[in-house]
Amino acid sequence: MDALLVSPGSDLRYLTGYDAKPLERLTCLVLPSSGTPVLIAPHLERAAAVASGIEQLGVEIVTWQETQDPYALTATLVSGGVVALDNHMWAEKVLALAEAMPGVEQRLAGPVLRELRMRKTPQEVEALREAGAAIDRVHTRMGEWLRAGRTEREVGADIADAILAEGHATVDFVIVGSGPNGASPHHEVSDRVIEAGDTVVVDIGGTTPAGYCSDCTRNYVVGGTPDAEYAAYFAVLREAQQAQCEHARAGVTAESVDAVGRQVIADAGYGELFIHRTGHGIGLETHEEPYVVEGNDLVLEAGMAFSIEPGIYLEGRHGARIEDIVVCTADGVERLNLTTRDVVALP
Amino acid sequence: MDALLVSPGSDLRYLTGYDAKPLERLTCLVLPSSGTPVLIAPHLERAAAVASGIEQLGVEIVTWQETQDPYALTATLVSGGVVALDNHMWAEKVLALAEAMPGVEQRLAGPVLRELRMRKTPQEVEALREAGAAIDRVHTRMGEWLRAGRTEREVGADIADAILAEGHATVDFVIVGSGPNGASPHHEVSDRVIEAGDTVVVDIGGTTPAGYCSDCTRNYVVGGTPDAEYAAYFAVLREAQQAQCEHARAGVTAESVDAVGRQVIADAGYGELFIHRTGHGIGLETHEEPYVVEGNDLVLEAGMAFSIEPGIYLEGRHGARIEDIVVCTADGVERLNLTTRDVVALP
Repeated sequence: MDALLVSPGSDLRYLTGYDAKPLERLTCLVLPSSGTPVLIAPHLERAAAVASGIEQLGVEIVTWQETQDPYALTATLVSGGVVALDNHMWAEKVLALAEAMPGVEQRLAGPVLRELRMRKTPQEVEALREAGAAIDRVHTRMGEWLRAGRTEREVGADIADAILAEGHATVDFVIVGSGPNGASPHHEVSDRVIEAGDTVVVDIGGTTPAGYCSDCTRNYVVGGTPDAEYAAYFAVLREAQQAQCEHARAGVTAESVDAVGRQVIADAGYGELFIHRTGHGIGLETHEEPYVVEGNDLVLEAGMAFSIEPGIYLEGRHGARIEDIVVCTADGVERLNLTTRDVVALP
Repeated sequence: MDALLVSPGSDLRYLTGYDAKPLERLTCLVLPSSGTPVLIAPHLERAAAVASGIEQLGVEIVTWQETQDPYALTATLVSGGVVALDNHMWAEKVLALAEAMPGVEQRLAGPVLRELRMRKTPQEVEALREAGAAIDRVHTRMGEWLRAGRTEREVGADIADAILAEGHATVDFVIVGSGPNGASPHHEVSDRVIEAGDTVVVDIGGTTPAGYCSDCTRNYVVGGTPDAEYAAYFAVLREAQQAQCEHARAGVTAESVDAVGRQVIADAGYGELFIHRTGHGIGLETHEEPYVVEGNDLVLEAGMAFSIEPGIYLEGRHGARIEDIVVCTADGVERLNLTTRDVVALP
């Protein structure tokens, strides 16, 4: 590859510290295989780019005026036949760059950048630890908000406030899946009124001021006790997640972590109800490499951080998911979420 | 074009009401020029897709399992040689679709979808009106938070809370540009301590539960009065923004709205300090078509909504910007932001 072209997002923040917003005007780091890296930026964002300290890294800032063509400008900085684009670059920029650089092959920068991003430094692990502690504090306070008679949306709004109050800069997602909504893994909130006896899946996360993400799922029962069926599969789920956390370590494959939990759940007869992969990497993004999924034979290394979050979903009835963020160490994992993984009974 | 391919984001929400999150797993509406539209979705998000009501629009939901290739699946639904991608589709999806459909030309869906999205229905105008009123309430309360001795970041955190409290579902951006930081149009917040006598640019916006965005800039002076230079150019800026709001209406071009304000500012000798276009369309996104910029000869129509936000920036000293969202009517514009456009003096 002759150059990486990186637009605003977590790749740009990772490489340079510049946390620019992805907008319609082109901002793009041109990182050539040799020579000086250049940040193309709208003129009105020059001061914001300078304030990020990007120049101290040896990046030259080149700005464009409102009526200039920034894609033609970018093309003048690229020599060679292959460029790699950050994975989240918008289609309008991908196609405009292709048009401005006829004959230049476009690939993805992901295969290069993931090698850096998925191996966390001790500083990054500490940032993830702080994020984990912050979301744990929110789960600890769940009894303040989650009770029968309130809607998922009302509870979710209170949780969102607490995500900020407990040390995040942004709320990334709030899932309050009560009763049958617990069987939809990516349910968010609805106007469903939570009923006495409901089990509730609460999966929440945010981004700290340092830019690192939290993500943790716990299970609650409100004003009652779970039915026998739920209790039976929850015990299996608890065992599966525990087995996965004990198996994961440097030297085993990502897919083996998935397989260990899937086996426990399948052996108990619930295999068809575990309808998603086990987990995803986490760092500057909630979802990033490595993915803990069948077919991913990546060998885990110390410093890799990811979720372990098996789930069992009984459509129309209820569901459960237990999720911790873990960081691989030489002889196991460090869990970054430490609140109880059992079903928490609230009044 | 033979099909539009639309991934999660405002285009998908506009077309179908499904407010899916953009994530690594492919969700994609395949909207053929004839035949049944299909939503490709991860199996674990089937329930969320159904809950959005998308099936009632005649869209068939086809799901894929974690170890399947969703791009190959999408390719089986496209016949013909040209597809159009939503403008914000991620590069990883653009390139994977290209690989799954060799020989199929990729274009942007923007030129088709903007014709729909930039002409707001009365319901959309009402939603923007509510968003405008919500952000106006935040500006009205600015004296609760903005004062000398606090950092921009502290003030910004309070503003963010108020954006939510006053009726938004999310905080999209908070710019508190005090003193010299007011000269950086896309400054956000910093640890700078606001000093007595500082002028402060406050540009804030969020998205309401209905999905529509607010965006309004007002100017404050804290514990003092602006210096003579600021007072001089602010008067010019005020006049320019007023002239633009009086000029804008159905039948004039977008670029003429820009030119009218630029002329007022240039005539007063500040032309070099107005370093950005006049404005952007607004709706389900904060920035969308039409752009109010030199070179855009689009003729405005009733129902088009956009910002009018000229600015004057004196690097190293201070800056000012006045921004209203307006909606074109047959004989003028309706302003959706109604708080005073003069500099507001706070204790």
